[in-house]
Amino acid sequence: MSIKDKVGSARSLWMDADGPDADIVVSSRVRVARNLTAIPFPHLLDLEKSREVTAKIRKAIENTEASELIGNLELTELGELTPLERQLLVDKHLISPDLLNDFQAKAVAIRQDEAVSVMVNEEDHLRIQCLLSGLQLKEAWEIVNKVDDGLEKTLDYAFSEKLGYLTSCPTNVGTGMRASVMLHLTGLKITNQIGGVFHAIGKLGLTVRGLYGEGTEAASDLFQISNQITLGQSEEELVNNLTSITRQILTQERASRKSLYIDRREFIEDRVYRAYGILKNARILTLEEAMRLFSDLRLGIGLKIILGIHDKLLNVLMVEASPAFLMKMAGRELSSHQMDVYRADLIRNEFEKAEK
Amino acid sequence: MSIKDKVGSARSLWMDADGPDADIVVSSRVRVARNLTAIPFPHLLDLEKSREVTAKIRKAIENTEASELIGNLELTELGELTPLERQLLVDKHLISPDLLNDFQAKAVAIRQDEAVSVMVNEEDHLRIQCLLSGLQLKEAWEIVNKVDDGLEKTLDYAFSEKLGYLTSCPTNVGTGMRASVMLHLTGLKITNQIGGVFHAIGKLGLTVRGLYGEGTEAASDLFQISNQITLGQSEEELVNNLTSITRQILTQERASRKSLYIDRREFIEDRVYRAYGILKNARILTLEEAMRLFSDLRLGIGLKIILGIHDKLLNVLMVEASPAFLMKMAGRELSSHQMDVYRADLIRNEFEKAEK
Repeated sequence: MSIKDKVGSARSLWMDADGPDADIVVSSRVRVARNLTAIPFPHLLDLEKSREVTAKIRKAIENTEASELIGNLELTELGELTPLERQLLVDKHLISPDLLNDFQAKAVAIRQDEAVSVMVNEEDHLRIQCLLSGLQLKEAWEIVNKVDDGLEKTLDYAFSEKLGYLTSCPTNVGTGMRASVMLHLTGLKITNQIGGVFHAIGKLGLTVRGLYGEGTEAASDLFQISNQITLGQSEEELVNNLTSITRQILTQERASRKSLYIDRREFIEDRVYRAYGILKNARILTLEEAMRLFSDLRLGIGLKIILGIHDKLLNVLMVEASPAFLMKMAGRELSSHQMDVYRADLIRNEFEKAEK
Repeated sequence: MSIKDKVGSARSLWMDADGPDADIVVSSRVRVARNLTAIPFPHLLDLEKSREVTAKIRKAIENTEASELIGNLELTELGELTPLERQLLVDKHLISPDLLNDFQAKAVAIRQDEAVSVMVNEEDHLRIQCLLSGLQLKEAWEIVNKVDDGLEKTLDYAFSEKLGYLTSCPTNVGTGMRASVMLHLTGLKITNQIGGVFHAIGKLGLTVRGLYGEGTEAASDLFQISNQITLGQSEEELVNNLTSITRQILTQERASRKSLYIDRREFIEDRVYRAYGILKNARILTLEEAMRLFSDLRLGIGLKIILGIHDKLLNVLMVEASPAFLMKMAGRELSSHQMDVYRADLIRNEFEKAEK
């Protein structure tokens, strides 16, 4: 199946929710930034030169000698996709919103299971990312590392013995690596402890962002925590460091949920069951309300208040509830109100199916 | 079964919701005020004299020659009941809240099906009331009239050829009759037409009150409309007049619901189904929220959006959701929070039973 065929389906590997601690660690992501030697960074290239970069990368991806390392990646130029299809890639976290600017010069290669994607001509010539379910930073890094090694059999990377990998933005110089986890911290939020946790995280050189990366509001109690530093530490150190901090936050989140469930059991059950009841019954649902209700329900699944519904369904619905997905499924433009009605119908039907 | 045994069960005839237009006219009520001749009005009596009045009325009720007219009434002095049991009678609309003041002097006689009750020593020596489901003012009046005739076989009523029945409060002089209907006017409320309707009603000599009579807030979109005038019109005229005005309001309410359902179908369905989803799932429900949700659900039943749930269940739950009923069912004192939890449990269980 081509990217064009698969883009409308909200089924990426990370959504399966079968990774370790996936009830709280929704996903782990590792990406590295790479640039080709002797070619200016993407923002300095005209369309023709950009396409030369894409051609080089296509060749590297299709290098059969490296295919065991790289896996089955399929490269698509963004210009081949409709605006809706491009947005769907963003909603599935396979590309960054930045890749939509001047998209004619850009491309993306995606593995069949959508766990690996390689952005071409974003801020750097290559951004290799791996996205897995649960706390699997090490595993994600190993996959990225293999793909990186495989591509390097063909490509010449810009690398300095002193600085490491050279990148368009100095904050990526060194390992060129960004590792992140998406955490569902609703217990810490309800108990008003989240501010303190984030304050501590900041002191450790980590950043917290909302669901869709930098500059967006924290929706549905999902927070992305990532490293800021790419220089002076090895990739393994970065991954180990973030893994260990994530484990600490996990412990705090579990403790806050447990105490909530002991001290305010009826309050929590009420909150969870109301969310469930509204999701299964509402006829109009805004994206914001749906996200808030998913968060409450996710808490209920984690606390085993709600059985019979799996986090996987919430991961899928969270992606499918986005405007682009709804329009793709409807096969037509939708007004804001039509979108809210379509979203409610979709969610209700999915829960009905899941309960059968 | 004695009143003491039956008081904890929320099963009165009006709750069956089987009367004409019972989807909007929840109940019809007629009561007449009567006083015994040559005995001062109740507020002027000491306890001993009050008990003499009660004794006279008991004798009249037990007059076997009149039993076909009166029916099977059972008289209980309020002092025989616990405070909780007295409150339950108010919640079931069998007695007025006023009967709880100086209750030692007071009594009530109730028919087995709880459609007829006779208050003794409220504002007047006798208040004979009949409460039926739907728009049945004429039927209620005929029942009250028969009981009245039956009691008059024994009792001597204070009556003036010029003024009619003499009553403690001059607003009741004449027929001594108050007729009222309890209407669920949620369509007119949502469409902001209710103010205009009430304004028109006022001009016709009628009064509008909230659920529990004078001075209480209109809860759950239920409004009691009653006549103000008792003098200068016959009982039949009063009943016919209120019936005809009720029919007009009914037409307006149905029209507003229909237009809402045509113009804003998704909005109405969303409102109704959310109410249903919350009632079936919440673990904490205040009385106020429960009443609001019952109102939305009642609208959904009326519009045939919700099948499988009958207005009867809502009538029962509306009564059972009151603090006194919850404590009676729990068999113990409940804090405000415990009450909200118990209420949610009760409602959820009843809906589960109804859906089986």
